[in-house]
Amino acid sequence: MSEFKAGELLSQITVPADLRKFKEEDLLQISKELRQYIVDVVSVKGGHFGASLGVVEMTVALHYVFNTPYDQLVWDVGHQAYGHKLLTGRRTEFHTNRIYKGLSGFPKRSESEYDTFGVGHSSTSISAALGMAVASRLKGQKDRQHIAVIGDGAMTAGLAFEGLNHGGVEDSNLLVILNDNCMSIDPNVGALKEYLTDISTSHTYNKVKDEVWTLLGKVSKFGPNAQAIVQKIENGLKGALLKQSNYFESLNFRYFGPIDGHDVNHMTKVLQDLKDIPGPKILHCLTKKGKGYQPAEDGSPTKWHAPGLFNKDTGEIIKVTPKNPQPPKYQDVFGHTIVELAEKNEKIVGVTPAMPSGSSLNIMMEAIPERAFDVGIAEQHAVTFSAGMATQGLIPFCNIYSSFMQRAYDQVVHDVALQNLHVVFCLDRAGFAGADGPTHHGAYDISYMRSIPNMIVASPMNEEELRDMMYTAQEKNNGPFSIRYPRGNGVMPNWKTPLKSMKIGQGKRIKNGEDVAILSFGHIGNYAIEACERLAENNISAAHYDLRFAKPLDEMLLHEVFGKFDKIITIEDGCVMGGIGSAILEFAADHQYKNSTVVRLGIPDAFIEHGSQMELHKECGFDPEGIAQTAAKLVGIKLNKQAV
Amino acid sequence: MSEFKAGELLSQITVPADLRKFKEEDLLQISKELRQYIVDVVSVKGGHFGASLGVVEMTVALHYVFNTPYDQLVWDVGHQAYGHKLLTGRRTEFHTNRIYKGLSGFPKRSESEYDTFGVGHSSTSISAALGMAVASRLKGQKDRQHIAVIGDGAMTAGLAFEGLNHGGVEDSNLLVILNDNCMSIDPNVGALKEYLTDISTSHTYNKVKDEVWTLLGKVSKFGPNAQAIVQKIENGLKGALLKQSNYFESLNFRYFGPIDGHDVNHMTKVLQDLKDIPGPKILHCLTKKGKGYQPAEDGSPTKWHAPGLFNKDTGEIIKVTPKNPQPPKYQDVFGHTIVELAEKNEKIVGVTPAMPSGSSLNIMMEAIPERAFDVGIAEQHAVTFSAGMATQGLIPFCNIYSSFMQRAYDQVVHDVALQNLHVVFCLDRAGFAGADGPTHHGAYDISYMRSIPNMIVASPMNEEELRDMMYTAQEKNNGPFSIRYPRGNGVMPNWKTPLKSMKIGQGKRIKNGEDVAILSFGHIGNYAIEACERLAENNISAAHYDLRFAKPLDEMLLHEVFGKFDKIITIEDGCVMGGIGSAILEFAADHQYKNSTVVRLGIPDAFIEHGSQMELHKECGFDPEGIAQTAAKLVGIKLNKQAV
Repeated sequence: MSEFKAGELLSQITVPADLRKFKEEDLLQISKELRQYIVDVVSVKGGHFGASLGVVEMTVALHYVFNTPYDQLVWDVGHQAYGHKLLTGRRTEFHTNRIYKGLSGFPKRSESEYDTFGVGHSSTSISAALGMAVASRLKGQKDRQHIAVIGDGAMTAGLAFEGLNHGGVEDSNLLVILNDNCMSIDPNVGALKEYLTDISTSHTYNKVKDEVWTLLGKVSKFGPNAQAIVQKIENGLKGALLKQSNYFESLNFRYFGPIDGHDVNHMTKVLQDLKDIPGPKILHCLTKKGKGYQPAEDGSPTKWHAPGLFNKDTGEIIKVTPKNPQPPKYQDVFGHTIVELAEKNEKIVGVTPAMPSGSSLNIMMEAIPERAFDVGIAEQHAVTFSAGMATQGLIPFCNIYSSFMQRAYDQVVHDVALQNLHVVFCLDRAGFAGADGPTHHGAYDISYMRSIPNMIVASPMNEEELRDMMYTAQEKNNGPFSIRYPRGNGVMPNWKTPLKSMKIGQGKRIKNGEDVAILSFGHIGNYAIEACERLAENNISAAHYDLRFAKPLDEMLLHEVFGKFDKIITIEDGCVMGGIGSAILEFAADHQYKNSTVVRLGIPDAFIEHGSQMELHKECGFDPEGIAQTAAKLVGIKLNKQAV
Repeated sequence: MSEFKAGELLSQITVPADLRKFKEEDLLQISKELRQYIVDVVSVKGGHFGASLGVVEMTVALHYVFNTPYDQLVWDVGHQAYGHKLLTGRRTEFHTNRIYKGLSGFPKRSESEYDTFGVGHSSTSISAALGMAVASRLKGQKDRQHIAVIGDGAMTAGLAFEGLNHGGVEDSNLLVILNDNCMSIDPNVGALKEYLTDISTSHTYNKVKDEVWTLLGKVSKFGPNAQAIVQKIENGLKGALLKQSNYFESLNFRYFGPIDGHDVNHMTKVLQDLKDIPGPKILHCLTKKGKGYQPAEDGSPTKWHAPGLFNKDTGEIIKVTPKNPQPPKYQDVFGHTIVELAEKNEKIVGVTPAMPSGSSLNIMMEAIPERAFDVGIAEQHAVTFSAGMATQGLIPFCNIYSSFMQRAYDQVVHDVALQNLHVVFCLDRAGFAGADGPTHHGAYDISYMRSIPNMIVASPMNEEELRDMMYTAQEKNNGPFSIRYPRGNGVMPNWKTPLKSMKIGQGKRIKNGEDVAILSFGHIGNYAIEACERLAENNISAAHYDLRFAKPLDEMLLHEVFGKFDKIITIEDGCVMGGIGSAILEFAADHQYKNSTVVRLGIPDAFIEHGSQMELHKECGFDPEGIAQTAAKLVGIKLNKQAV
């Protein structure tokens, strides 16, 4: 049972059918209680915040008007679906949100029949809902409704456009709700955003249309000649205004709005009306992230996107300030170091697809604004745009989360690597992402990057190595250079080490040993250090090598390892299928090393759910204890019990 | 030297600077000669045809007006760039187009400084040109122009939209030329296409705008009251018409056109004018694929996209009809078999992103149109749309070329595999694509597909296996199921074998042997058969296994192989980095098989240029002779000379 108490009306709602028993005049109160519940839980348990507050009324109206789950509601991205979860049978479990073995922070098909489509990455909703709508058409379910709720930020991704372009010519019950709050996690950018602002402010599109029609009516009263001319104008305008006068209508969607997304009763009425209009249509709703919680409304939406724990009465964010200086986040090391490098090398530019604060490129956007680009949620473009700049001798640092880089895989291959262009890819959130779960885990990049010719694949074990890799990547043109590092903090409180050149493809022996060799790639090597200590306590002598490069491999180091050890463990915070462990097996096969047993630790061939990074590492057996146990087993020794 | 003779004016042009010495009145004749030259060469040597004919005048005008290569011209897709190649120093080599070691069929940076960006996949030009334009801005080159030439078909891809969305807010000399011919390779589809047709026919946008303004002028003559009202109307309309009344203007591009793309003199004038207009702008040009060559103008643009050899005088396509029945193309086996399956299983739907004729899904589009979808050049959407349908119990067969599937990698992971949805991926053109070269080689799919959890990865050795894999894939829900097969023909003239179920993850022993085991994946196994014969002639006894599944692997078969053989060769028409050979090394390591030498044949870690498939297989050492030589070397025997 939950420690949280729902309001009087909300407590009567388990599923949307319960909501639909209420009268329309109760919806305002229900919205209030829903918002309060979200504040109560998230302030204490953490999670995404501003986005869900911004769609409280929309969520209530949608489940009130539509016959969910028969009618199908697809939430884009999904971090705004807390209200949806609370209205669809998950209120009493909601306090487990984003916790290991608890509810997912995103809609998830296996969790509820109301979650029609699993999400996490943005901009999939239109395509998915269209697929459902076409399926309903094929099944003859003419009454079934399909609704995609998508933010204006997500609308900038190519996938959303592709969905619109197809949706506009399919005869289907598809309603796209554009949740326009001018934000991604950071403020939204791009031409479409400016356009939406234009039609939402000054002269709104509908207002203009109405006014012109009224005025033409007045003009026509000036006599028959005027009438004839007015008729001509009207005919001409109909083409221009009705068919071509709106971005969405040019894609053959009927456009409605903009309306106030926080007026739950008006929204309910509009949705009722739209239910009866066949074909593709879009409802433009204006909302505010953090709506209804004053500190979030007044503060920065980026800060309140996922604020961590806070005092719900004062809005004060609860910070635990440790006594000793702590290691920085890897992303901040990136953010400060790129500025340091760019100040000396004027060829360097920075690119982020809508993640200035998440990647810390915002530090460069502040310091050298003319050379740092936020291109919106548009990973494909981010990479090809970088390629274009690289053809002119610039050195783009293109920073994309590992799992989002999957969106730009073709552009990495076709536009960058094939032309051997000097683009530096910084893959943040590589490895387990933690509470965001499987949509956000950066599990595949080692495997998909190392298969690409010309690509250098590097990963730092600590802040100093990240800085040196960044320095090396811009020092001269070695073609495409990728650097992966995890979410979270490094290990060096004094991380501002002098920048120095690294030999590309050279690893490092961290520790000598006799019984077993541990080869690690990236930050996870710090676990190996702990594991080696634990093994030493048990009189097992483990050698430890920090590979630093998955490609090119350090062949000299590997000859040393295979020459000396017949027991080898590889560790990577990435999938073992085709990862660096496989690269090392390839090396061994190519050089006919046959004596060694090689055990590959990493993410197994399965989608791993959410949890803290350490919980997930432990689940997959490559936390420090797991590594030590694997090594001990290989050596044939049973470890003593771990000291607590 | 070339056997082809250029016309009088064309023969005086080596580089665009030569072109620019001519008078404007000569451009018509130059265009004619350029077109004739393309007809002369392509009719005899083959290659893409209709697209280049359609942009002859545009090509001449662009190089006449702009100061290439200082001004930067980016061709989208690039198969329309033959005229460009002929005007930029490559006329005398042009007869080697698409031939092994000859010119590339696409623009390529390493080939010419006039080729600003390598292409092959569509829709990259806006992003790339924007990158160049921003670089010029940063370098202070204010006069430098950047032009992206993109077809209306390519405009449907998300990447193009992302480029526009960013381009609209960058202050840069970017001109997008929309080459509107209503075609991809097949007729273009989608809402944007309908929109472009709308504004190009009936009331054109500009015409409406002009007329309304003129008419309002007339109305205002009805006196001061009318004038005041007209003023109001004008103000209101300015917002609606000028800012919001056009798809491209809503993205903040200044829109010009549509103009006739075959009027070289008018085009020259318009381009001159546009040179002086700063900021992002788009010129909409109407062209016709195959323009100026009557048989192509009269015939199907799809047929004349790349017609093969033809009699240039009669327009008759030269067909070599063999006496004996030949094996079919794999794509046709797919096309006929999906119809056969769909007739019995009403859950089956077909999806192609703009490749109905290339994939042969057009057979289903003809036979069962309501269940076959061409979604335009939109691979990402094709996959997520399929995922949406799969959530409703449909079984989408989503057919995408291997190298184009790279565009949808994230959607395969995030929208299909993570939700374990029943989508069947058919990857045509897997392995070397041949004359299209490195942009089109399907080199990475085995590696990137097998790393994805839940994914079944299969490849048939012949038509019967393809049919059985397709049958098996739809028989019951085993989650995502991918089937890769190559460009070109199979091996079975009588290919209409009875459909039967396959055990997922089960390979097949083709031949017993003693000295060496050859494990092949897919069609390339037919080379292994030849290699085994050659080895037998030399008294080497080779066993041959057709693996059929890269995932799940046939562990029983592999235990047999590793139990019996210490010499093993793996063969795949895909990259060896992380491919099926690596999968087998992973198996061997996991089961501690240490006695075997495993040699992995496949595409090495490099981008391989164009040529016939056999030429490329030979280059990479996995043609039949290469396989035999590898096996013989492993066994320590020198093969006798090959019989001719």
